[in-house]
Amino acid sequence: MKTVHAYAVNEPKGSFEPYEYELGDLQPDEVDIDVETCGICHSDLSMVDNDWDMSEYPLVPGHEVIGKVSAIGDHVTHLSVGDRVGLGWHAGYCMVCDQCMSGDHNLCADASSTIVGRHGGFADVVRAKSASVVKVPDGLAAQEAGPLLCGGITVFNPFVQLDLSPTSSVGVIGIGGLGHMALKFANAWGCEVTAFTSESKQEEALEMGAHHTINSRDMDAIANTDLRFDLVLSTINVPLDWNKVLGTLKTHGRLHMVGALTEPMEIGLLPDMLFKQLSVGASPVGPPVIIRRMLDFAARHKIAPVTEHFPMSKVNDAFERLRSGDARYRIILDRD
Amino acid sequence: MKTVHAYAVNEPKGSFEPYEYELGDLQPDEVDIDVETCGICHSDLSMVDNDWDMSEYPLVPGHEVIGKVSAIGDHVTHLSVGDRVGLGWHAGYCMVCDQCMSGDHNLCADASSTIVGRHGGFADVVRAKSASVVKVPDGLAAQEAGPLLCGGITVFNPFVQLDLSPTSSVGVIGIGGLGHMALKFANAWGCEVTAFTSESKQEEALEMGAHHTINSRDMDAIANTDLRFDLVLSTINVPLDWNKVLGTLKTHGRLHMVGALTEPMEIGLLPDMLFKQLSVGASPVGPPVIIRRMLDFAARHKIAPVTEHFPMSKVNDAFERLRSGDARYRIILDRD
Repeated sequence: MKTVHAYAVNEPKGSFEPYEYELGDLQPDEVDIDVETCGICHSDLSMVDNDWDMSEYPLVPGHEVIGKVSAIGDHVTHLSVGDRVGLGWHAGYCMVCDQCMSGDHNLCADASSTIVGRHGGFADVVRAKSASVVKVPDGLAAQEAGPLLCGGITVFNPFVQLDLSPTSSVGVIGIGGLGHMALKFANAWGCEVTAFTSESKQEEALEMGAHHTINSRDMDAIANTDLRFDLVLSTINVPLDWNKVLGTLKTHGRLHMVGALTEPMEIGLLPDMLFKQLSVGASPVGPPVIIRRMLDFAARHKIAPVTEHFPMSKVNDAFERLRSGDARYRIILDRD
Repeated sequence: MKTVHAYAVNEPKGSFEPYEYELGDLQPDEVDIDVETCGICHSDLSMVDNDWDMSEYPLVPGHEVIGKVSAIGDHVTHLSVGDRVGLGWHAGYCMVCDQCMSGDHNLCADASSTIVGRHGGFADVVRAKSASVVKVPDGLAAQEAGPLLCGGITVFNPFVQLDLSPTSSVGVIGIGGLGHMALKFANAWGCEVTAFTSESKQEEALEMGAHHTINSRDMDAIANTDLRFDLVLSTINVPLDWNKVLGTLKTHGRLHMVGALTEPMEIGLLPDMLFKQLSVGASPVGPPVIIRRMLDFAARHKIAPVTEHFPMSKVNDAFERLRSGDARYRIILDRD
């Protein structure tokens, strides 16, 4: 039996306290990861607060893990003890449904989440099915790579899914944890990049790879912009006047939603949706094969999130910072 | 000067009366078509009634024309006098914008419509820019082909645009003028086909190529169906509970709108849009190159709309029939 030393909250919106639990026998398809760093994603906060009515306490969040493989099950062939790896939102897939068999593991209806009914990466060790664990390429700055595993793949995956051309003009709505990585990826992808963001972040958005900015708080600025997009990626979870956003799209343009927007979108067909042949889509995180591609792409282009680091023992301070909304742009917990 | 003998309405919701007008000189890129038949589309009714606030009177509707080329301009190379041709919603394109240069003539912002600011096919002659005029292949029953030029291409074009696979399961919402042709096309395309329609049309839907039917008036039937679709094509212009429709889609499924729905769609992202990676899109008619492909496909598969014929001189009777909603499924006017 292996004892895990973790940080857990014991009730919705609770504070973190040290928490120990025992891991059972390692299954043949599982690996244990000795955690080095773990990013904090907005969905960790949603789970801590039980926003989605599916949290179980004690809850150990953390699903942007970088660490080293410390044990592998008998059937694991693609990982070895000592490998530096990443673990994201999913900690396992059924591996046999049509989605898994198509490379769409992130759409597997039986996928298990790293922090739903399981304990995550705010700990010294986290266990996962090996298929969900991805090797970190040597060229990538591992210390900063955690946020790529959830926030990063969430914005990178649509580029692959939508077969985005480098000749495209891409708008990114919301320059936070996800959006700032989207700017970097879109720039490296070869696209013309526009950040829809508050005035306070416009300068930084330009530094992160945007060629243009639009004030996202000003619907008139959106309605009246001369910029036109092939893809607008929305990372926000608050409503906008989506029809004005659709009005900024070129023919065949796509509005792609990756934020967990709970309010319904009001979409008018006339005139733009119909006469410009637009579409509105959405996607959740990404499958392991595209996480691998993303990490290689990030290594090659030296793409890393902009981060603030806290020691894991200061996780309560880190969450206070996250709740303030002032974090620029992603927080990483470093194992003490 | 050539005198055209047409039927026009002189005011919104008016009756048709014989109407004559003069055609000016034929431009180098224009052709005149000696009309043989002309289908009646729901948008002819909308234009007669000025539903879209863009009708000019006297108004000569008719944009599902089959006829023979009677004159060609000096620069026309792909058509000859005597060719049997079709003319649909568009009677000309700018030919130089990005859309036209990409084969997306139907998305050209400067496309001219056959019946907007021009006189259409309820006449002995109609004039159009040659690029919008498509040869009718020999194998196609020309007498029945008119409705393919607008209604047909509107439902066929999405199959091409969305790169629909014959392994797909396709649902068609609304089995009317457009929807009944969609069933036939989807069946010939090799797909598994489901008609969402009223009980009264379910038997006929099965005869027209559907393998299954769902009662479209019963949202519970839609919500509870075991059928799952890769594509649902909606041909209706009245609101449904679109989230229930989205719930019938497989992962990567697409809801594609071709009806001119004026009410906004309320689309929830959670759970289906996001976790199944769905998308909602729309498109208007189709470009000439795909009209050509459709006519070849229809000829090869012996696909024709189900029609009721009226002599053109009885256009008022035909419109009364159209307004009754009982027409099965498309009305064609035959030149007297």
